[in-house]
Amino acid sequence: MYTPPELRSFFLDYMQQHNFQFSPKELFEPVDYILQLGGKRLRPILLLMSHNLYQAKIDAALPAAYSYEIFHNFSLVHDDIMDEAPLRRGKPTIHQKYDINTGILSGDVMLIYAYRYLLEVPDKNLVPELMSLFSKVASEVCIGQQYDMNFETSTTVTIAAYLQMIEYKTASLIAGALQTGTILAGAPAADRHHIYEFGRNLGIAFQLQDDILDTYGNAATFGKRIGGDIVQNKKTYLVLKAMQLANNTQKQVLEELLSSYPKDETAKIAAVVAIFDALDIKSIASRKKDGYHQKAIEHLALVKVAEERKIHLKEIAKELLERMK
Amino acid sequence: MYTPPELRSFFLDYMQQHNFQFSPKELFEPVDYILQLGGKRLRPILLLMSHNLYQAKIDAALPAAYSYEIFHNFSLVHDDIMDEAPLRRGKPTIHQKYDINTGILSGDVMLIYAYRYLLEVPDKNLVPELMSLFSKVASEVCIGQQYDMNFETSTTVTIAAYLQMIEYKTASLIAGALQTGTILAGAPAADRHHIYEFGRNLGIAFQLQDDILDTYGNAATFGKRIGGDIVQNKKTYLVLKAMQLANNTQKQVLEELLSSYPKDETAKIAAVVAIFDALDIKSIASRKKDGYHQKAIEHLALVKVAEERKIHLKEIAKELLERMK
Repeated sequence: MYTPPELRSFFLDYMQQHNFQFSPKELFEPVDYILQLGGKRLRPILLLMSHNLYQAKIDAALPAAYSYEIFHNFSLVHDDIMDEAPLRRGKPTIHQKYDINTGILSGDVMLIYAYRYLLEVPDKNLVPELMSLFSKVASEVCIGQQYDMNFETSTTVTIAAYLQMIEYKTASLIAGALQTGTILAGAPAADRHHIYEFGRNLGIAFQLQDDILDTYGNAATFGKRIGGDIVQNKKTYLVLKAMQLANNTQKQVLEELLSSYPKDETAKIAAVVAIFDALDIKSIASRKKDGYHQKAIEHLALVKVAEERKIHLKEIAKELLERMK
Repeated sequence: MYTPPELRSFFLDYMQQHNFQFSPKELFEPVDYILQLGGKRLRPILLLMSHNLYQAKIDAALPAAYSYEIFHNFSLVHDDIMDEAPLRRGKPTIHQKYDINTGILSGDVMLIYAYRYLLEVPDKNLVPELMSLFSKVASEVCIGQQYDMNFETSTTVTIAAYLQMIEYKTASLIAGALQTGTILAGAPAADRHHIYEFGRNLGIAFQLQDDILDTYGNAATFGKRIGGDIVQNKKTYLVLKAMQLANNTQKQVLEELLSSYPKDETAKIAAVVAIFDALDIKSIASRKKDGYHQKAIEHLALVKVAEERKIHLKEIAKELLERMK
């Protein structure tokens, strides 16, 4: 069984052998640019890990792993246009470095290539099932992004709706990648289900963790500016929970703060965090996250392979959810 | 064998039964909007026609026909953003009616649904081949659009490069739709090839016809403003051929005219047309178009089905290429 760093290294080799140095360069160079910006390569590594639960060799799963990584990056390219984000992983986004049209069209061709790589799986009989799963989670990513944009102008976002949004926008693709590895490995239907649920719950926990870190994280290790969500008035789990628990005064102050764009952002962040702290929001959110983590682990326990083979999946889940320490 | 109007009616029924009235409406309503704007439904009808060459029933081909129509409309949605086009079929484009983000995201979900409908073909063994063809022509549409954008700022566009661009941007999808109908019908490999080549040559002829009509068409039947390409300084076949044949004086005048945006557009159009006429460009372009039409018909002749079954394909090709009369 391979370790995650070994799988990562196999995947990076495969990526390098399958770069996008095609003509016309105006279309394909941005694809190479975004794919080489780095990132955790979480989805392909999880796909290879779930495959490796059943199969000693992971070569048959590399094209599908690439497919999920290309799709993930496609969604970042188009989301960054929609969110007007100038930076991605500390470097200019495609629409910033080139222009918006390049971002749209290079993104489109990435989506098509995500499907093309999924066609490269050795056993063509699996193509319909893999395509069907991929298309389902890909649609959910779009729906999640739409919910996220709707929430920006909505004043009636419920916690249930928020959890649905992060499930679609983040968790579905992680779950789909994990299940794809098991389909390619010929795993039993029950295992495929539990692996999907492992990924879905892990993905939701992962996004809740991101919400917590955005306010309570360590700037050095988190990689983004602390308090960014508060500055942008984003309706994260922390905000929605705080609004639910706040008394009338706190509610009014929160509403005012989170609809303002003051010059003194530090004071705004501090004022919001003071209310969060008074309501113990960090602990509540952490417990919520732990609940999803726990559910993920329960599903992993039901996967019928020897427990010692699951060690890397358990570890990566733990690492992902303990980034704040 | 069905007539094109019958096939069109079957297809429109299928579309109506498979609308996009899904939630969230912010994402899917624009998809319904663009799909219901009308249009010739050329690609799905051609797909059903090529299927009907071999199979009496066309039901098995309807999902794939829808797939090609959805893809075509997806490409219009994103192209209209890139071209900043306010109108499509006389109605506001999606980014104009809603906003650019809606155009991007609703377009993305259309591309995913184009793949989803291709998965709906009854014989799942055909999925890999259909997907592979679809992905190839879909990539070519993106590459064609990129060439088209590159040409806007290039001063060295050759006629060969222009023909390659219109092949990718327009002809590939038509050829792919036609071949898809034959794959679904279980047609022999040689027939599949000739049907593809029929579509590819027809598509190029169709685009050359569009270039001619844009300058020499009848405003009432063409549906667009006559001279629009000249106003926008587009490097169409007419312009490139004129530049090739012009003497130094004509060349200099053309270059000046086609890099200007004067207030008096009518005078500019007239001046360019005067040079076209002096060089007999309309006849030359028509002969070029006829050459591709001829090649298309030659390939159709090599398809091994009874000649009387090809009558509708011949007719639709003729109609498409005689819109100016």
